[in-house]
Amino acid sequence: MLNVLTPEEALNLIHSEFEGSTSQIQVLPISSCLGRVLAQNIVAQEYVPDFNRSTVDGYAVKARDTFGCSDSLPAMLTLSGEVKMGIHADFEIKDGCCAYIPTGGELPQGADAVVMIEYTESYGDGTVGIAKSVAPGANIIFRGDDVSPDKEILSAGRKLRAEDIGALAALGIAEVKVYKKPRVAVISTGDELIHHTEKPSLGQIRDVNTPMLCALVDSFGAEAVPCGIIRDEEALLFDAVKSACDKFDLILISGGSSVGTKDATSRVIEKLGTLLFHGLAMKPGKPTILGKVGNKPVIGLPGHPAAAFFVTDIFVKELINVMLSTENENVFVNAKLCEAVSANHGRAQYTAVKLKKENSELYALPIRSKSGLISSLAGADGYFCISRDSEGCAKGDEIKVILR
Amino acid sequence: MLNVLTPEEALNLIHSEFEGSTSQIQVLPISSCLGRVLAQNIVAQEYVPDFNRSTVDGYAVKARDTFGCSDSLPAMLTLSGEVKMGIHADFEIKDGCCAYIPTGGELPQGADAVVMIEYTESYGDGTVGIAKSVAPGANIIFRGDDVSPDKEILSAGRKLRAEDIGALAALGIAEVKVYKKPRVAVISTGDELIHHTEKPSLGQIRDVNTPMLCALVDSFGAEAVPCGIIRDEEALLFDAVKSACDKFDLILISGGSSVGTKDATSRVIEKLGTLLFHGLAMKPGKPTILGKVGNKPVIGLPGHPAAAFFVTDIFVKELINVMLSTENENVFVNAKLCEAVSANHGRAQYTAVKLKKENSELYALPIRSKSGLISSLAGADGYFCISRDSEGCAKGDEIKVILR
Repeated sequence: MLNVLTPEEALNLIHSEFEGSTSQIQVLPISSCLGRVLAQNIVAQEYVPDFNRSTVDGYAVKARDTFGCSDSLPAMLTLSGEVKMGIHADFEIKDGCCAYIPTGGELPQGADAVVMIEYTESYGDGTVGIAKSVAPGANIIFRGDDVSPDKEILSAGRKLRAEDIGALAALGIAEVKVYKKPRVAVISTGDELIHHTEKPSLGQIRDVNTPMLCALVDSFGAEAVPCGIIRDEEALLFDAVKSACDKFDLILISGGSSVGTKDATSRVIEKLGTLLFHGLAMKPGKPTILGKVGNKPVIGLPGHPAAAFFVTDIFVKELINVMLSTENENVFVNAKLCEAVSANHGRAQYTAVKLKKENSELYALPIRSKSGLISSLAGADGYFCISRDSEGCAKGDEIKVILR
Repeated sequence: MLNVLTPEEALNLIHSEFEGSTSQIQVLPISSCLGRVLAQNIVAQEYVPDFNRSTVDGYAVKARDTFGCSDSLPAMLTLSGEVKMGIHADFEIKDGCCAYIPTGGELPQGADAVVMIEYTESYGDGTVGIAKSVAPGANIIFRGDDVSPDKEILSAGRKLRAEDIGALAALGIAEVKVYKKPRVAVISTGDELIHHTEKPSLGQIRDVNTPMLCALVDSFGAEAVPCGIIRDEEALLFDAVKSACDKFDLILISGGSSVGTKDATSRVIEKLGTLLFHGLAMKPGKPTILGKVGNKPVIGLPGHPAAAFFVTDIFVKELINVMLSTENENVFVNAKLCEAVSANHGRAQYTAVKLKKENSELYALPIRSKSGLISSLAGADGYFCISRDSEGCAKGDEIKVILR
């Protein structure tokens, strides 16, 4: 019997069954962490900046020495030093004195403001004229203005972006804990399949799922390993899945999951572990299987590449996010549907679209394909879902497109 | 003199100056092409599928033999064969006959429809009862339904996604032409800088820009190469830039671009080539330089990491897209601003935000930072721009957030 779940039920089951199967942790230098998921909270240990710095090129002054000055009546200060970049300013500004300071230079003791160089004139005789008054604190970043110790900067679960890596570098954090990429076995099954680089004879078709699913899984932040094509023989599939369960964190098997004479995937899962569901109330993607062998998820995907694509992009992605303790970062845009799309089969229906912008309005053109084969998805910008209790969408309806 | 451009003018200049500097082309196996930019149009050479296929498990029939049948009065057909997956169906269905066919199997000659197995009964004596009539074409994908020769499947400039790789595999295209990743030299300048893994003494700061900009440039689909920290000496910078121009496609120099005593970047560019602009009417990011040495872009970025981040994410990204002949794929979302943000300095102002969803409404919380240092950008979800002729945004204003 098929135990058919709705997409929502399947997502909930993925969370409840696999929330504990978190990926292991590894320590990496931050320069290798782009796109990796942080496995620790990052708490500052230092002040950023660590010293009072000038934000402009100019003169470090005591602000009160500039009060009342103007273009026509500059304050005359004694030049008593020069701050050099990267060198500790180990002198003090006394009353009536100033020191040249470059952008980013350390504010010397005694100074409490910086006057921009545009408002000053150095007379060359050790005197500097200041033509604009400044308030205390002007043009200075104080120690710890940006970050103080104990401030939480980043939280576990964050998929690291370049600016996060910059922040870690600024904080003096050279290595961080990230989750290991889950290793995903990608197995195709089917007597009719040949490697995608071979030329098919009549009756044969190229294995589209292996290269596609590997790329898709890699794009989720996991590491796909192509495990070849298994003939439609239960014993062969049993051996392949058993061996994959020893070596990988997640096993994807595509093909062989419709309820026909060759449906070996569910039987193999039942022999090795537990079948969690068999069948999803979605189109395409109905013949989808989820099982558990030990603590490892084993997913039977439809053999049809377009169906395998949708199921992987929705459910395998969610599963990998669960294993990485991170959130789904799908991006949605609203668009007006260019053509009606019917859907009256009691299953959630997923349809790929191309987007186009006209008069700053976004339109979605559904990609129609009798066969639902993968070549119809080439060049898609995203897809949308028509819920199972809807009979379709009319032309002009506002839809929510999941961007690809 | 500063030749200051608006952001729009700078983007236009990038296009007009560098549209010809397209990256070289390489041929790669499709399994290595995720995220790479296609350098050719892909036109189908084959039919997909290449033969008429069943979309269900069932019996291949002549449709007219099923007309008028029902549950109570099944059509009785002679079982005259079985289609095997992956093997050419080299027999013909004659009148009154049928053959078992699995999902994906090749439709035998003579058959024009498939009846799903659920509506059939095999009596075990060579006879099959058909309980539901089918129209010609039912449950069949015909040869070429998905793709016919000469159909354009993907266009040059497409950043390849997993489903595109699937489509290429389906079409028997094992290798494609893609643009080589532009190789980008990332140089930091400044006497105050130390490598980000070292411990700064007073007056020194860690080089945040090298690890951040390398990650950012990699995320654009280019290949960043960290080239170290150059002391503030024009001769050293000259040598470094000259040597980088021989080896790399694009040179990024951060720091040293404010108009102060140490402003060597613009002088080096003028010695080696042409200065295109010096100064952007944006905040942060004003001290930005664009030059051209030979045909190669040389960009002087602000030393402040947050400023370097915005300039790189906006202008260097655009430049790399131009070199890859592809379009910017920035994604925008609309959000309601949680707090007022002022801006009255005549420059386009970029402010990072965190997004939060409440009652299905998206809110943007501006990240405030006196110093604009990079640690304030950690954990940001995106940023928005206040145009130079605006005095700011009020609380509750709808803003367009560029997602990170």
